[in-house]
Formats: sequence, C-alpha cells, structure tokens
Amino acid sequence: MERVNRSSTLSSTDEVELEQSGTSATIHLDMTAGGGGSPSDFNPFGAIDDVRFKTDEDLPDVMAPPFFSKYGDFHTIDWQRDLARDRLRHKMISKKNFPLGLLQSGWDAGAGWICVLFVGLAAGATAGIIDIGARWMSDLKTGVCADRFWLDREHCCWSSNDTYYKDDDCKAWTKWPWMLNYYNSSSFLFLLLEWIFYIGWAVAMSTLAVLFVKIFAPYACGSGIPEIKCILSGFVIRGYLGKWTFIIKSVGLILSSASGLSLGKEGPMVHLACCIGNIFSYLFPKYGLNEAKKREILSASAAAGVSVAFGAPIGGVLFSLEEASYYFPLKTMWRSFFCALVAGIILRFVNPFGSNQTSLFHVDYMMKWTFIELVPFAFLGLFGGILGSLFIFANIRWSRFRKNSKTLGGNPIYEVMLITLITAAISYFNPFTRKSALSMIQQLFDRCEDQVDEDSLCDQNKALSIAFGQLLWALVFKFIITIFTFGIKVPCGLFVPSIGMGAIAGRILGITVDQIFRAVQAKPGHSEYFTCQIGKDCVMPGLYAMVGAAAVLGGVTRMTVSLVVIMFELTGSLEFIVPTMVATMFSKWIGDGISKMGIYEAHIELNGYPFLDSKGEYPYSTVASQVMRPSIHRQVADEMSMSDLRELKNELSVITESGMTLGDLESLLRQTDFNGFPVVVSQNSMHLVGFITRRDILLALHTARKTQPYVVTNSIAYFSDGVPDSLPGGPAPLRLRKILDMAPMTVTDQTPMETVIDMFRKLGLRQVLVTKNGKVLGIITKKDILQFMRNKNSQ
Amino acid sequence: MERVNRSSTLSSTDEVELEQSGTSATIHLDMTAGGGGSPSDFNPFGAIDDVRFKTDEDLPDVMAPPFFSKYGDFHTIDWQRDLARDRLRHKMISKKNFPLGLLQSGWDAGAGWICVLFVGLAAGATAGIIDIGARWMSDLKTGVCADRFWLDREHCCWSSNDTYYKDDDCKAWTKWPWMLNYYNSSSFLFLLLEWIFYIGWAVAMSTLAVLFVKIFAPYACGSGIPEIKCILSGFVIRGYLGKWTFIIKSVGLILSSASGLSLGKEGPMVHLACCIGNIFSYLFPKYGLNEAKKREILSASAAAGVSVAFGAPIGGVLFSLEEASYYFPLKTMWRSFFCALVAGIILRFVNPFGSNQTSLFHVDYMMKWTFIELVPFAFLGLFGGILGSLFIFANIRWSRFRKNSKTLGGNPIYEVMLITLITAAISYFNPFTRKSALSMIQQLFDRCEDQVDEDSLCDQNKALSIAFGQLLWALVFKFIITIFTFGIKVPCGLFVPSIGMGAIAGRILGITVDQIFRAVQAKPGHSEYFTCQIGKDCVMPGLYAMVGAAAVLGGVTRMTVSLVVIMFELTGSLEFIVPTMVATMFSKWIGDGISKMGIYEAHIELNGYPFLDSKGEYPYSTVASQVMRPSIHRQVADEMSMSDLRELKNELSVITESGMTLGDLESLLRQTDFNGFPVVVSQNSMHLVGFITRRDILLALHTARKTQPYVVTNSIAYFSDGVPDSLPGGPAPLRLRKILDMAPMTVTDQTPMETVIDMFRKLGLRQVLVTKNGKVLGIITKKDILQFMRNKNSQ
Repeated sequence: MERVNRSSTLSSTDEVELEQSGTSATIHLDMTAGGGGSPSDFNPFGAIDDVRFKTDEDLPDVMAPPFFSKYGDFHTIDWQRDLARDRLRHKMISKKNFPLGLLQSGWDAGAGWICVLFVGLAAGATAGIIDIGARWMSDLKTGVCADRFWLDREHCCWSSNDTYYKDDDCKAWTKWPWMLNYYNSSSFLFLLLEWIFYIGWAVAMSTLAVLFVKIFAPYACGSGIPEIKCILSGFVIRGYLGKWTFIIKSVGLILSSASGLSLGKEGPMVHLACCIGNIFSYLFPKYGLNEAKKREILSASAAAGVSVAFGAPIGGVLFSLEEASYYFPLKTMWRSFFCALVAGIILRFVNPFGSNQTSLFHVDYMMKWTFIELVPFAFLGLFGGILGSLFIFANIRWSRFRKNSKTLGGNPIYEVMLITLITAAISYFNPFTRKSALSMIQQLFDRCEDQVDEDSLCDQNKALSIAFGQLLWALVFKFIITIFTFGIKVPCGLFVPSIGMGAIAGRILGITVDQIFRAVQAKPGHSEYFTCQIGKDCVMPGLYAMVGAAAVLGGVTRMTVSLVVIMFELTGSLEFIVPTMVATMFSKWIGDGISKMGIYEAHIELNGYPFLDSKGEYPYSTVASQVMRPSIHRQVADEMSMSDLRELKNELSVITESGMTLGDLESLLRQTDFNGFPVVVSQNSMHLVGFITRRDILLALHTARKTQPYVVTNSIAYFSDGVPDSLPGGPAPLRLRKILDMAPMTVTDQTPMETVIDMFRKLGLRQVLVTKNGKVLGIITKKDILQFMRNKNSQ
Repeated sequence: MERVNRSSTLSSTDEVELEQSGTSATIHLDMTAGGGGSPSDFNPFGAIDDVRFKTDEDLPDVMAPPFFSKYGDFHTIDWQRDLARDRLRHKMISKKNFPLGLLQSGWDAGAGWICVLFVGLAAGATAGIIDIGARWMSDLKTGVCADRFWLDREHCCWSSNDTYYKDDDCKAWTKWPWMLNYYNSSSFLFLLLEWIFYIGWAVAMSTLAVLFVKIFAPYACGSGIPEIKCILSGFVIRGYLGKWTFIIKSVGLILSSASGLSLGKEGPMVHLACCIGNIFSYLFPKYGLNEAKKREILSASAAAGVSVAFGAPIGGVLFSLEEASYYFPLKTMWRSFFCALVAGIILRFVNPFGSNQTSLFHVDYMMKWTFIELVPFAFLGLFGGILGSLFIFANIRWSRFRKNSKTLGGNPIYEVMLITLITAAISYFNPFTRKSALSMIQQLFDRCEDQVDEDSLCDQNKALSIAFGQLLWALVFKFIITIFTFGIKVPCGLFVPSIGMGAIAGRILGITVDQIFRAVQAKPGHSEYFTCQIGKDCVMPGLYAMVGAAAVLGGVTRMTVSLVVIMFELTGSLEFIVPTMVATMFSKWIGDGISKMGIYEAHIELNGYPFLDSKGEYPYSTVASQVMRPSIHRQVADEMSMSDLRELKNELSVITESGMTLGDLESLLRQTDFNGFPVVVSQNSMHLVGFITRRDILLALHTARKTQPYVVTNSIAYFSDGVPDSLPGGPAPLRLRKILDMAPMTVTDQTPMETVIDMFRKLGLRQVLVTKNGKVLGIITKKDILQFMRNKNSQ
C-alpha cells in the first residue's frame, strides 16, 4: 500500500480536480432564500435530504432550486441524492389539485419522450448535414464540379450525363490542374500540381479545424468518448456538452474529415449527439437541472449518436449500454431505443449518401462460408487483438509524451499541420489511402462479381498483385499515422481508421486464402472437395475484410456484443454473425490477455478522470479499513482497541451532534479541505449520526450569519433534535438538523473491497463511511477507490 | 401500515417458504470435517466469510465445499457471499504452482464458454426435435401420411409428387375417415367422423401430457417464465430445473402442442433451455456448486431459449436482460449472446420447418407504410394494451379460483380434458382456429400478392367477408379459451396465443383500413392522393397483423425493447420497426395505466414468490425504521430515545460478542426461528459487531458438541478476538469468530426505503441491519420489503 505516492500520481492530472480535493470556493453563496418558520430553524436547500424522512406535510411549498442538483466543475454527482431530489419533485406534482396536477403529471411523464424525440430529430439532421458537408469538402481536394460547384464528385458525375465515369473521373468534375490549363493527366507536372493542391487543401482544412477548436471551444477536439463515459458515470465537466462545443465540433468535424487525416466521424458523432441531448435537456427542468436525471437523456443521446454514425439503432442502444453508460435502468433503454430509431429514420430522410442505405457500409453477400474458414477468421481475431493492443500501447505512449512535452503540447497547430502534411503527401500515392476511408472500406467489403473489370482487387492477373502490395503498404502507413493522429487537437474518431486497418488486413488474408483455394482446386482431382464455386459463392475476400474490420475494432475498443450487433445491422443477415463473432471473441481474448484496457479506458486513465469501470473484476483480498482515510496500518487494523480509536479521532475530522459552536465549525471548515464531514454523537464515542457536505454547511452558516443577527460565533450548533429552548443568558442556538444527511452509506471495517467497489458502482456513491462496532473509523471516497485500484494494478 | 395482516397474506402461499420463515430443519449436519489448529478453534465451513478479511496465508488448503454455496429449498441466495466464495476459489487456483495452476486457470476461464456452448448446442437440438415432433403429432389429428407415416402433412404432400395440393389436402395425406372408407369429404358423416377423430386425438394428447406431468414431474407444467424470473433473481426451487422436469416437459410440450390447445411452445422452451443450463452447469463445479455463478449460465440459457423459440438471438439476449435476468453483468451478456447464437445456428441445421428460415414467422414485405397509417397502428397499440390487461385480470382471477377451489385444484386431469374437449370441438369449425396457431399467424402475416387465388383473406369478394366474420369469431374464442388454458397443468406458453390474438385483431383492422382506402380511392378525383398502389405496396393487412401481434404481446407481457427487436429479427428490416414500436409504446402506456403488472409478475405475485422486481419505481416516503422488524410505531420512530431502544432490545434477538454460553445460544435457536442474528457488543449498548446465520451457528454448535468433548453447555462462546486463554476451573471457551460475518450490510434508521430497495436489488442482499447511532435497531429482510411493497400498492 504505497499511500505516500498517492497524491503525487493524481497531481499529474492538472485538469481534473477530484471531489475530495477541497478548494470548494466554486460554491455560490448567492442563495439567500431562507425558509420560513422559526427564525433560527432555517433550511437553505439541504431540505431535500431531510424531507425524505418526514411526513408529506413537512414538504416545502416552493418548487425552487432545492429540488435540483448543482455541482462544481470536475465534481462527481451523488446519484442517490439526485434521484431522491427527483422523487421529491415528483411527489410535489402529484400533490397538486385536479386540473393543474393532472396536466403537470402528464407533462412530467411525457417530457422524457418528447426530449429524446427532439434529440433524435436533431441528431439525425446533424449527422446528415455533416456527412454531406464532409463529403463535398473532401472531394474539393481533387477538383470541383464545373457547373454546379455545390455537388460532390459522385453527384456531379451522376448529374452530368457523362457516359465515361470510372471510379475516379468524369468530365464534369474539373480537376484543379485543369483550371491552370494542364489537361494531360499523365504528365509529371499535372501530377505534381494535383499533388500540391491535394496537400494544400488538406493542410488548409485541418489548420482551420484546429484554429476553430483552439480559439472557440477547446473541448471540441478528440473523440469525446472517454469524456462521455466519465460524464455518464457521474462526472461533471462544465461546457463539455455546451452549444459552442457542439457548433465548433460540427464544423471542425467537417473540416478535419475533409483534410483526409486518418480519423473517423463516429466518435465525435456520439459527442455531438450528447451535446444535443444536453442542450435539449435544458428545455425540461426535470432533466436539465438534475444531473442524475440528465444522464438518462445523455445515455439515449449516445445511442442516437452510434445509430446515426453506423445506421445501427439496436447497435447504438447496446453500445450505450455496454460501453458508454453507467446508470442504465430499463426505462432508459426503451427510451434510448426510441431516440436511436428516430435519429436513424431522420438520417434516412436526409439521405446523405444518395442511396437509400442508412448503414455506413452496405454489403449484400449472397454466399455461404465454410467451417474451415473459421480458422482464418480466428487468425484475423488474433491479429486484431495484437494490432489493437499495439496501437493502444503506442498511442498512449505518444499521448503521454505530447502531454508532458512543452514543444508539442504548446503547439497543437503545428502538430496538426505537420501530421496533415505527411498524411496527404504520402497517401496521395496509394489508391487505397488516397480515396476517402469510407469508400476504401466499401471497396474492400464489396464482393467481386459484377465489377471485375473495374476493381483491381477483383482482377486475377497482375493488377491483383499490385493491389496486394498497395494494401500491405496502406496497412503499415495507416497503422503508423493513426497512432500519431488520434489525440491531435481536432475532432477525430477512431472507429473508421480501425475498421479501415482491419478491412485491409482482412482483405489481404482473404486474397491469400482465395489464391490458395484456387491453386488447390486447380490441381487435378481436387476440385471435388469444393462444393462451392470459389470467387463466386465461397472464399469471398470481402467477407474477410468485414471480419478483419470487426477484429481490429474489437482489439482497439474491446467492444463485444454491440460490435457484433453493429456488424449484423450492416449486413442484415444472421449468417455472417458467426465469423464476426469468432473474430471478435479471439480479438477480445488476446487483447485482454495483453492489456486489460481498451483505448478509451486507457485515455481515461491517462487523463486521470475519476472513472470507476463497471466491467472489471477486482479480486483483491483487502478490506475497507485498509483503504479508508485516515489510514491505519494493517497490523493495527486487525487488533484495534479503544486507544487506537482515540488516536484516530484526531485525524478524522468529525462534527459532533451538539456542543460545537459556530466558531468551531467555521474554523474546522477553514482548517480542512474535505468535502464532507461525518457527524457523531460525541468525540469520545464516535458513534455515527449522519453526514454533512461542506457545501451545505458553508451555505447554512453563511445564511445564518447574514439573516439571523442573534446567531453569533458562540452560538452552539445542534444537529440533534433535543435543542434546549433558550439557554438563559447564552447565545441563541443554531438548529442544523435539517441540513444533516441522516442516511449516509456505511460499511463495516471488515467489508471486503470488492463489495465496497460494487456498492460504489451500483449505487453511484460519492463516499462511504467506515464503521466498527458502530463507531466511525474513516471515510472512503471514489478517489480513494480509484487510487487503490491503480496501486493494486500497478503492483 | 397493516402489519397485522402481513403473515396472513403470505401464509396463503402454501408452496413457498420464505427465507425467514424459519423451519431450517433442512440443514444437513453431516459435515464433520472440523478444521485443524487448536482444539476449540475449529472452522466447519464458515471459513469463507472470515478468510476474506485475513491475509492470504490464512487460506485453508482444501478446496472443499466451503468454496461453494448450499441453500435450502425455497430459500433466497446471498449474492455477495456467493460471489465472495467464487473469488476465494479463484484465488486458490491462481496460487497454485506453474504447470497445474496455469492449466487450472485456463480451464477455469474457459469453463463458462464451454458450458454455454454445450447449452446452446443442446437447446438448439431440443428445440428442433420438439418442433418436428409437435408438428407431426399435431397433423395426426386429421390424418396420416399413407406410405410414410413419419412425415407430417406438409412433407407428406411435398414428397408425393401430388399436383393437387391446396393448403389443406393432398392425396398422399390419408384423412382418418378414409380409413373407414368414407371418401365423400362433403358428406355429413365424413365431417362428423373427422370431427370426432379431431377431438379424440386432441383429448388423448392433452390427457397424456397432464398424466406425465402429474406423475413424473409436477414442475413441468405451465410456462415456467415466472419461476425462471424468481430463480434468476436468487430464489432456490429444488428440482425445478432438474432432468426429470426437462424430460417430462419436452414430451409434454410435444403432446400439449399436438392437442391443439391455445398455448405456445415459447415460454416452456425458455424453461427447457434453463433446465439444460442447470444440468450442464453440474459438469463445471465452478457454476454447479455456486448458486450465484450458476445464474450466469441460466441467464445465457434463457437467452438461448428465446433464440430458438423465435429464431432471434439478439432478441433473446435482450429478453434475458430485460425480462428474465436479475444479475446481468456485461460479461454474461457477451456469453449469453454466444449461447443464443449457437442455439440459433443449431436450430437452423436441424431445420424443423423444412425451409431455411430460422425465424418462427417469415415475412418479406416489399412495401412502404405511410405516416397516416401510424394512427391505426397506435390504435392497435391501445387495443393491445386493453386486451392484454383484460386478459391478465381475467386469467389471474381464474387462476386464483383454481388455486383455492378444491374441485378444480385437485382434479387437474379433468380440467385439462374438459378444456381440450371444448377447444377442439369449437375450433374445428373455424378454418383459422382449426389449423395450428403457427400456420394461422403465418397466413395472417403474409402479404397477398401471389396467393390471391388461394387465400380467402386476399379475395376481394364474398370470401373476404366470410373470412372477416371468421376472424372476429376466432378472436373472441381465442381470448376466452386462452384465459382458461394458461395455467392448466400441462406445459403451456403464452407467446403464441398472444401473437395469434394480436395478429387476428391486426388483420381485422388491416382489412377494414384497406377497404376504406379502396373505397376512397375508387371515388372520382380521389385517386391522386395515393402515391402508392393499395393492396400492392401500401395498406398491407399483413403488416397490420404483425403490428397487432406486437401490440397484444406487449400488452400481456409488458416487454418493450426485446419485443421490438424480436419483431425486427422476424422481418429483418428497419423499415417496419417504427410501426411495431409505435404500437408497443401505446400498448405499454395503456397497459401500465390500467395495471402495472405484466402476466408474469401477476403470476409471481399470485404464487407469492419472493421476487423483487428490478424495474419498478417506488416513490414512497417511508424510511427504514418503519419497515424493519421488530416494528416500532411511526410516531415513536421519530423521537426515539434510549429507553425505547432498551425496550426494543427485548424484541430483537441478538447474540452478544462474548458472555453467552453454549446453552444460551442453543436455547435462543430453539426459541426463535429467525434465519440469522446480529452479533452485538453487549445487550446494553447494542453496538453492532457482525451477523451470523442460523445455519452456520447450528452447524458450529453441532460440530463442537460432537468433536470437542470438553465443550459443555456452560462453555462461553466468544465471537471476539480477546478470548481468555483458559479460565481456571471454568469450562473451555468456544471460539466462534471464524463463523461470524464481520461485514453485514447496514443502513441507518432514516434511510429512505427507495434506497434500501435499490440496495437489495442491485447488491442482491438477503437482509440488511438497521442502525441508529451505531446501535442495532432491527433487521429488514427481502420478505419485509416485499410485504411492505404489497401493502403500499394495495393502499
């Protein structure tokens, strides 16, 4: 137990301030609304905790801020308390009289559905606009549509009735060198010019993107999924889901996609959908003002994000459930599904890809796979797991270097420009990296039958071997450049690059297997082993590409069910789930064998966010008393006596139920920086009465000082019921029972840490009090748990 | 708070014995293995609770029963403790030396996957066999295949190259009257004979089924899903998932399906899959001997059951997650998916339906729906919600009557025979009820295009109006007969009857809407409003049938996401999710508005199983001290003083840490029937030390008496560490610290019940101790919570 280096590890996370790290100066003491009743029996807004335990008659009459939660930036929310707040709010409504009460109840019940409906509509529309914008601006790298500049290449070529349209070119699409009157497309100068335009446009786009992000919304960079995971688990990052982040990330995403960098739109799309969810939730105070309830909307939004990114609503819901969300009651699941579906439908209406496909990649395999092919599929899984782990390792090393390096960290613009320059300059020369990642993946996924003449991958002659070499080269290049790309300060996701790498690797293997089968079949006497026609209805390299994509994506993100379901929704056939599943399983096993963390968890750890993974298992033989603060030595913990307890008492800052003066409390608050204090019967007995947060007590004292002049420094604060009516001669007592949380969570000192962690995860706790024989020994916060787990894992 | 009638309500549940109801005579005291060490420091098998708090060196060396859980029949398992047992077992393995330890670790890690693989294989095969068997025996009602008696009608007609094959008849299929030389199929005698054969065969089948169930395996009757839900939530029902139940339920399911009763195979299929899971789990001690771990396998099995029932693996996983399972970590989800997929694939290999469809109903709609149609879809939802609630109400009333009636409850055979007689006699005269429910539903789901000539539903003339009347009649008949059928003592599910009712209702509405549209379109000047061709690519009655099926199934079971996903997997198209979803949403809203409980929850309540629903929200303003036992009056609870506490002490049976003699303990066990006792510092202080179960203490005392002759009635039992070495002259002390659970869950008396319920649900508790200022006030068990919720709901 290296308790010493605890703080040093966490202090490296300069951005994040944990919930016990004190400096709660962010608390706004602008809330002067004292309760009615007796002068010294006020109730600023801690009322909620108290009202829960009283009869309904005691409920306050105003439906003001007390019903909602307010947390400081980078703080963790208290789920139980927020949900209690919501229940209270609910009770208030159902107490109202007939016409108004019924209307309000109806509105209250429907609000969630209306909110996610809006979120779905907006997310679908946003995704459509971004898809169209990114496609158009990306095509501008090579040229412009002559008569209708607003069309992208595909639509340009379609709309001009150009008979000559082969993959790349049509006459209506004016390449940039043509503007300078270079028409001979095979001349060196033409190619050079085209290359320069290509690079220039890419660098311009990415520079614009990074400038926008840097100037307007620093939170708009990156994938956003690690942060979304933390936010959904109860962390508060102000502005991360704000409107500026939304606007800048949308624009930046179009720009960065257009720049041809090795990045995807899918992760940012989830972030954007969550921004939309956050923005809309403010229309509904039930959600907007209660952080725990808001996360229900955000879970649905995340599902909508994946739904529009892949055209996979069910996959979206499962992604939200498996990967993103923390607190996911079944009611939320149903609403998330609705949200994801609406978003998917809207995207289909917007129809950004010009076809009627909602899915990102459309495949229509008509063939079967044979059981022997499960061997190469499993091999792809192994490869995906290894590649994924390698990627995570390298990317995290580089990100850590970037974080700590002055040169790199301070100059994100130059970094982006440099990466774009390299990416554009190199990828221009390879037909697979030159085209957009999406069309490359589509080409790799496609079956060969009907485009044999066009597609070099479907050729059986020299073109195939050239393509094979290009694929190998593209794989290596993509792998290296993506390591450096993921983490630069533009909006960038990881799904499409991973799928791209996997598709290339899969296609390489597919071509190999295909050629082997053909060679074997060509031998005399072997053809009867094959019931299927190779290249036509068995050994389809396109399927290998798809399986490879799933494998690498699984290796990088460690998704399981949602990944398979997304792939299922892409293909629409049960038939191909099995290969995908085999690859994903092997990829997950190997990946987890190498390192337990997926890329998002690794980035969460790198950034030091207080995220308590809901998946891992922690087989530690440690008990609560060894983790709590103030810490006691293990040996002591076992045979602790009363004298030890008395020693501890000096370390653990507690408040007594009665007897402490206002001045005592104020000096305790000054001297310590804890975010909460156990309230005990007496310093001697240490028997637990309740818990009080720093925020509540600060506010209460402040209000008391301000509004009740007869409360002086010597006034005794009573957290108990038995307040002496008026001490003759003494100062007026201060009644604080109403702000006391009488239901703190407690565990005994001998509770195994697995159980404590389970409680934190499942009940969404902020802290738990450790008791022994009814006496408070210490406190365990979420931070302590995370620290403990990190120490354990690094041992 | 009607505390008085508590026990009376529960005592009606004669079958179920709750965890605190005492009579723990089922405990087997055959475990004589005392630990080593000092003579009086033994450790029968409570070791587990203790080892968690000690260093690894203290671990016992044998991997014997202590690592596994053992519960009495109708008891509730303790999840936290079982999971701790598994962690301990895991630690033991990882401590072993290189070759063996690695092998064991590998086996341990793979065991779960191998187990669910077997379960999937077996579930798929079982489903295939049952499907084939039920189909064949069902067709025997009307005739037999002339030359190949083992073929069902469809295969019989296929295999004979009979050109005349219209829905019902072909020459190779020998109708029973033909055997008696009656060939004129329109003569009265022929029809009468056929009718009698039809009824006779049906009654014979169902009588056989009920006899099998009654004689061999009483648990094999019914749907099984309510019980599966309880078992997955931690309830133990010995033999419910045993091999006899499996065999008899399989056979009985074939028979009861063949009898033409209004029942489905889907619910029982889930039960059968869980039986398979249970049986296979005994091959893997990790699962078979640990009740909590076993439920991971059972969750996967339930998913496989739905997967084979509907051909919907993803729907199966979501069903398991949403409806059936309680404790469903994400690792389990991934494994469940694998299991469901394997089962689905195997079913496809078995190919029971002769086509290559895995789904129960295959639809291939090629058309679009218009937005205006959402109105009738929503109406179907309303109808489904109302019909479902009505069904639940009537079925529960009838089931309660059956339960309490001597005549009915004691004579299940006559009841089954009577119901079968009525069903067969009436359904023979309606073409829709006469054919098997599955083919009726398929016919209702089908689009019209290509079978206009054959299908009366697709006719536009008189045949349609006759069919319309028949449909109406079928709906009423199905509704009434299913109320009486669901709950009789044969294996019977509810999915297919619900889907059937919904499909009929939907088709009726679909035909109506279709006719209205046609009428409107036929008017001059109206046809331009229709962009689609009615009857061809819009207003398809088959889609209405599907939507109606979803609506009624939703109304009866209150499933949401899983229902929509199952429907999605049936149709395979995103397009038709929206109508299904709209109908399901309205159905759920209306249904929940009428009564909160679905049919399974209602049956759980009827049977009095201790099931704590993981879905509901309980907005009660009650705190723990008002629910705990011993109970205190509400008014007292608020201002409780020390004297009250002292009074309470007499009611709450506690054990003191030290000072009680063996005789005291034994008399305490004799006088009370609680299943566990809080251990406190002293009777005066009531400060909590730990918790001990009746089972552990009984076993410990028994073993002590048996193996340690110097332990006498006057020996003082010490649950604390500070045991005086040897009192001169006095009897030898008895050290019982090792069997003490030092980490009981506690809450304060002011904790709101919502939080307590949350803890029970999410942490899988059996009991929680209520404290105030560190003193034990009382105990809340799962039974108390259920009782409390029932009282609250009935208020």
